[in-house]
Amino acid sequence: MAILYRFLYKFCVILIIGGNMTIIDIINKKRLNKELTREEIEFAINGYLDGSVKDYQMSSLLMAIVINGMNERETIDLTDIMLKSGDIMDLSEIDGIIVDKHSTGGVGDKVTLVLAPLLASFGIKIAKMSGRGLGHTGGTIDKLESIKGFNVNLDNKEFIKQVNDIGVAIVSQTGNLVPADKKIYALRDVTGTVESMPLIASSIMSKKLASGADIIIIDVKVGNGALIKNIEDARSLANLMVKIGKAYRKPTICLLTNMDEPLGHAIGNALEVKEAMDTLQGMGPNDLLEVVMTLSSIIIGAVKKIPNNEAKQLLFKQLNNGKAYDKFKEFVKKQGGNLDDLKISDKVFSIKSDKSGYINKIDTLRLGEIAKSIGAGRNTLEDKIDYEVGIVLSKKVGDYVEKDEEILKVYLNKKDVAIVDLLECFTIDEELKNVPKLILDIIK
Amino acid sequence: MAILYRFLYKFCVILIIGGNMTIIDIINKKRLNKELTREEIEFAINGYLDGSVKDYQMSSLLMAIVINGMNERETIDLTDIMLKSGDIMDLSEIDGIIVDKHSTGGVGDKVTLVLAPLLASFGIKIAKMSGRGLGHTGGTIDKLESIKGFNVNLDNKEFIKQVNDIGVAIVSQTGNLVPADKKIYALRDVTGTVESMPLIASSIMSKKLASGADIIIIDVKVGNGALIKNIEDARSLANLMVKIGKAYRKPTICLLTNMDEPLGHAIGNALEVKEAMDTLQGMGPNDLLEVVMTLSSIIIGAVKKIPNNEAKQLLFKQLNNGKAYDKFKEFVKKQGGNLDDLKISDKVFSIKSDKSGYINKIDTLRLGEIAKSIGAGRNTLEDKIDYEVGIVLSKKVGDYVEKDEEILKVYLNKKDVAIVDLLECFTIDEELKNVPKLILDIIK
Repeated sequence: MAILYRFLYKFCVILIIGGNMTIIDIINKKRLNKELTREEIEFAINGYLDGSVKDYQMSSLLMAIVINGMNERETIDLTDIMLKSGDIMDLSEIDGIIVDKHSTGGVGDKVTLVLAPLLASFGIKIAKMSGRGLGHTGGTIDKLESIKGFNVNLDNKEFIKQVNDIGVAIVSQTGNLVPADKKIYALRDVTGTVESMPLIASSIMSKKLASGADIIIIDVKVGNGALIKNIEDARSLANLMVKIGKAYRKPTICLLTNMDEPLGHAIGNALEVKEAMDTLQGMGPNDLLEVVMTLSSIIIGAVKKIPNNEAKQLLFKQLNNGKAYDKFKEFVKKQGGNLDDLKISDKVFSIKSDKSGYINKIDTLRLGEIAKSIGAGRNTLEDKIDYEVGIVLSKKVGDYVEKDEEILKVYLNKKDVAIVDLLECFTIDEELKNVPKLILDIIK
Repeated sequence: MAILYRFLYKFCVILIIGGNMTIIDIINKKRLNKELTREEIEFAINGYLDGSVKDYQMSSLLMAIVINGMNERETIDLTDIMLKSGDIMDLSEIDGIIVDKHSTGGVGDKVTLVLAPLLASFGIKIAKMSGRGLGHTGGTIDKLESIKGFNVNLDNKEFIKQVNDIGVAIVSQTGNLVPADKKIYALRDVTGTVESMPLIASSIMSKKLASGADIIIIDVKVGNGALIKNIEDARSLANLMVKIGKAYRKPTICLLTNMDEPLGHAIGNALEVKEAMDTLQGMGPNDLLEVVMTLSSIIIGAVKKIPNNEAKQLLFKQLNNGKAYDKFKEFVKKQGGNLDDLKISDKVFSIKSDKSGYINKIDTLRLGEIAKSIGAGRNTLEDKIDYEVGIVLSKKVGDYVEKDEEILKVYLNKKDVAIVDLLECFTIDEELKNVPKLILDIIK
């Protein structure tokens, strides 16, 4: 009997210390649609980073989160745990208000290329880390690298110095920011667990918060060519991100913009840089200009404490007097780029419409996929991009096109494309249907 | 322009062959709660077996299936694809009706040890493959191996010969049966994706169908000590398995039995063999006897085309006249076992109740975990079992116990246990509450 009592004490100690958290219990809890504690989320994320939680366990947990969701508290905790999984940028040596801007990804989205120098020309500090394109969506870093010599790899010191010197720097991610997001995102990409508002919100916000800016502006793209397909999802994502921002006292402004057609006319890296340069000289397409103006007038209005309309007037002036464009040239030069040598393929083919009518729809996802297939994008991060190729739309949604009139130009190099495939991206009818709104909502 | 047309033909060919099925599309489909086609399930399962679908993708798909479910058609297809992933036993050389019996797993479940020789003593053929215990539940193969010399590894030829010679053989799984289930089950175990009726049903039925028997009887354990905790889930699982059986024209009979207390008195390998031997000699505990009688009378009634009551009379006779026990001895001897040397630990401790009253509940899961912790079970398939240890209940649910009266005996060897832990498994009240029914339903 003695041996029984000997162990009694030990057992009680184990029962009291207890807890004995396991990843399987955490997965089961979320599978049964219960709220996870901060400690449980921490156990899962940190365990995944240190290898004690396996890929197959994390993907199972992620799927349970995608289907059963996470509430605001869980989402804010998840963001915080990811944020603290790595370094947090210290931008305290930069004077003035630092703005960071993010897009959830679309086709032809060159807003950053215009917005950054435009705001910097007003003395706003743009300290921005950008990403590369993946799948049918493009990335700012790829676009900048289409400029010969452009260096996206500044170290922290150079980065901060440049922002202080000329007001703007855009680099590829530097340092060990949010390693948890990096590892989890790569897993989500191959396990069908991308489309979840709490996962998307915490992924974006942990990165933005780690980048150290004062004001975060996020362009939530909505529609066929975007990750988020409908306005309700976009609104709930935006609300979630604004709430996360509030939890950190970082003003976060979300613009919901239409991605049912490419933004502007150009798709493809050097072609988009060229379109951005045109826009900085007051000759840009209306839709691109409208997104840029809406975002930048919110910032300028808030910083200068002037009404939105006045801010817009100032902004237009800055585009027309060449100051915004000068800032762009200064920024490119500072990072080693040579704009005189922006190469665009000379194998240009004019594609004509096979019927007359109004363009009521453009399959933007498919057009993005085609642009990728001719070399403008990549399937995996290892693929090489052909900066010189792409598509330039001659017509957009709402336009009338005659049979045999040019509907787009395609710039090819090493890879080819089928005309039928390009033409099938356009829905052309006799009657004009509703042209969708471009700016769908502003949430802040 | 020529290069464009050159590629047009190739594109069309690709579009027509099309399909281009990917595991991510399949995961996304189930995530959105859509029905998977047979081809999609085949792509996932066969891809997982050949390694093109990764662990983390399969676990994500499994979680989507656990939460969103599968309909009957999907479940039958899944069963069929798993069944065909490996060998299927050919028992055509065995004369007569071959019965296979399966239990979904419980604590103290030694039904097979009694049922198999009992039915064999009537000329029914029992060609059975059994499993090992895992977690808090025991396994028939472990129990048989507590008999010194017992050989659970017969090859196919020996297996069939023995069934033809003496009517019964029980072996550990032989050949490459249902490798898909083996691989998926191991993954489910570590990813919180065990509790799903379609996944459990297809796992059990693919193995039973691969084993080649004519009649399948399944004891679905329900309650705290079982995998299935409530009667509704048990009923839906049983209905699903009966339907799968029908799709293969194999009569499938499911008994739903209570696992809110251990079956019989003994938990632990040699202790359970001893209790089975007592039962085969007409001296078994009532509940164990009732489950054995219910299952075997259904078979004998159907085979001999006699009413259930008559079948039960015949069965009782066979227990009392020693023929069932003789068959057990013959069976054990034939597989090399020596019953004279059944070792049970002599370190026996009598545990007394710390209060008086009616036992209204036994935490069977916890009791199973304790039995495991003293060596009667295993956490992983690599753990070694101590055959000599275990627990024998002196009191069961519904019994009255006096303070300081023996409530159980514990047989220890190398590992110890806390008395408080054992006593806490019992809920003892002044009033007797409802004693649960043992046989909850029969579904066929």
